[in-house]
Amino acid sequence: MFPDFDYETRIDTARQAMEAAGVDLLLLSLGADLPYLTGYEGTATERLTVLVLPAEDQATLLVPRLEEPRVVRRGDAFAVRAWEETEDPVAVAASLAGDGNRVAIGDQMWAGFLLRFQSAMPGAGFVSASGVTRLLRMQKDAAEIEHLREAAAAVDRVVARLDATRFSGRTESDLSREVRAMTIEEGHHADPFASVASGPNGASPHHDAAERVIEAGDAVVVDFGARRHGYWSDTTRTFVVGDPDPKVAEAFAVLEEAQAVGRAAVAPGVPAQEVDRATRRVITDAGWGDYFVHRTGHGIGLEVHEEPYLVEGNPMGLEEGMAFSIEPGIYVTGEFGMRIEDIVAVGPDGVDELNVSPRGLHVVA
Amino acid sequence: MFPDFDYETRIDTARQAMEAAGVDLLLLSLGADLPYLTGYEGTATERLTVLVLPAEDQATLLVPRLEEPRVVRRGDAFAVRAWEETEDPVAVAASLAGDGNRVAIGDQMWAGFLLRFQSAMPGAGFVSASGVTRLLRMQKDAAEIEHLREAAAAVDRVVARLDATRFSGRTESDLSREVRAMTIEEGHHADPFASVASGPNGASPHHDAAERVIEAGDAVVVDFGARRHGYWSDTTRTFVVGDPDPKVAEAFAVLEEAQAVGRAAVAPGVPAQEVDRATRRVITDAGWGDYFVHRTGHGIGLEVHEEPYLVEGNPMGLEEGMAFSIEPGIYVTGEFGMRIEDIVAVGPDGVDELNVSPRGLHVVA
Repeated sequence: MFPDFDYETRIDTARQAMEAAGVDLLLLSLGADLPYLTGYEGTATERLTVLVLPAEDQATLLVPRLEEPRVVRRGDAFAVRAWEETEDPVAVAASLAGDGNRVAIGDQMWAGFLLRFQSAMPGAGFVSASGVTRLLRMQKDAAEIEHLREAAAAVDRVVARLDATRFSGRTESDLSREVRAMTIEEGHHADPFASVASGPNGASPHHDAAERVIEAGDAVVVDFGARRHGYWSDTTRTFVVGDPDPKVAEAFAVLEEAQAVGRAAVAPGVPAQEVDRATRRVITDAGWGDYFVHRTGHGIGLEVHEEPYLVEGNPMGLEEGMAFSIEPGIYVTGEFGMRIEDIVAVGPDGVDELNVSPRGLHVVA
Repeated sequence: MFPDFDYETRIDTARQAMEAAGVDLLLLSLGADLPYLTGYEGTATERLTVLVLPAEDQATLLVPRLEEPRVVRRGDAFAVRAWEETEDPVAVAASLAGDGNRVAIGDQMWAGFLLRFQSAMPGAGFVSASGVTRLLRMQKDAAEIEHLREAAAAVDRVVARLDATRFSGRTESDLSREVRAMTIEEGHHADPFASVASGPNGASPHHDAAERVIEAGDAVVVDFGARRHGYWSDTTRTFVVGDPDPKVAEAFAVLEEAQAVGRAAVAPGVPAQEVDRATRRVITDAGWGDYFVHRTGHGIGLEVHEEPYLVEGNPMGLEEGMAFSIEPGIYVTGEFGMRIEDIVAVGPDGVDELNVSPRGLHVVA
């Protein structure tokens, strides 16, 4: 699934970041750090997959024997060692680890494995690998941005198809199934998701599509995406069945302005939290601030949520090549919800909009 | 999605197990321990969800504010505390933790959160929560076994439909899509998976369905399942397009006998590894031992892989109410693969077979 990037160079760059961070050993299991450096993604099971990357020695990808056939070799970037069902993979990994005592461990490794590594390497100190990998992964190169742009274009085509799709009389879960199928049909490869939150359910930002039947007058928040060549799409549009309630229309006008202000605030050097503040200010000034209960956005790439986060408390300056969502929402418990979500990248002079489907209320039947 | 079990009693039982294990505090995030005790499953994101269960005080489910609407209250089993986007959830959890210093942490919590808990609670020692939860979850009660039986019946119906499905001329990924759709149609709720491994790809036990076109003479290993009310199905049948190659037929006869011997070996008191040995002996004695590269089976329940594992080195005695797979396979690199996988439970006198679809080679067009 992952493109044939230059993984040897990426591993070299990671070694430089290890040196800068004073890290002797990198241990990467689940999450996107591993595919970023190797083009290989582990399975989320009790059988450990881990890249053992010492500061000096050869990198080794340790995989369960029965998953060895899944590994795509990437030149000399890393060796592959399959462990047998009766071996202890943590002991094998520790034996490949070299002498260093400052170990950086992937954020999404299972905690049970970290506890076992801490027992197997009692002299070592463990820190989060994101200190090593975050800068590498946040700054996308041109090829990565194009992968994100193509994924965004695919979900934008789904939005156009949804404009011609009947909503009323169907359950949320039925519509969710159709959205996920369209997302694959339009060129994604894996892991489609589609939250469909109608009427009062829209007030739950992470609503799981359920058996509620969509009816006339409902606002329907559709938040969906998937992976294409490993890169995620993630967009949200708000639909309304027939004429919107005046209160919905009033709130939506505020939301649409806020989301546009958020996009316009994106530029190199701008602190991440300033994008959140600019977006939130529009909603707060219009009197809806208590109903915008989450941050403005999250980074996106090989993970659907990754750094940078656009949230109060994150002063990090945006840089060219970063990609993230701009997704304010308004949620009124018991009544309705709404959200507009685009993926944008930071271009040399300002925002580079990856999603471009119409952002207004989408009227459907 | 999760049934309305008696979660208060389950939490009481967990407290007794904590006391027996000398554990002062249980911290459960991702994985099935949390839904087992609360009926709530966290989302796998950078926003922490965690059940804070001190030995003495009230249990508290800490969830991100925007996911609070997803929580189903279960009587007085636990309190709910939503954390805001600008709060540190690890600090909030630590403040609810009480004075104890022996902390058991869920195996699948992200390692990055464990590192943060270790920093926030520097006087505490951390151990794996599975020491507390494994016995509870391994021994299914009658209602849980019935959930597993209904999930198994649903995938058995899919096998019957596959017997009438055309395989040849289609890609593995196309057939995988159809199998997953059938799995949902037959009554599952979430997370369908279907590995379709044809011809030489069958030699990769965890093959990802790919673009290979299935052709006449291929053996095709179809390993699939999903979740129904939170409980997993997982079955494998081997299909062949038209007449099987004589070598495939010969190996399959050995495999079928081995799998039957494995099922027959199941009874209360039998060590888990004895089931692996009995199964493996048949394959080894027939000269195919080098081609059976994995353990015989894994437990199943709220996770598709959980304890007990049927593997050399696990002497634990089976007990009534345990449920697991029996799934020997034979994998010849570059040529073919085959596997038969059933879920069984341990009944009072011997095996209780949950999957009952025909286990022989399924001839298809």
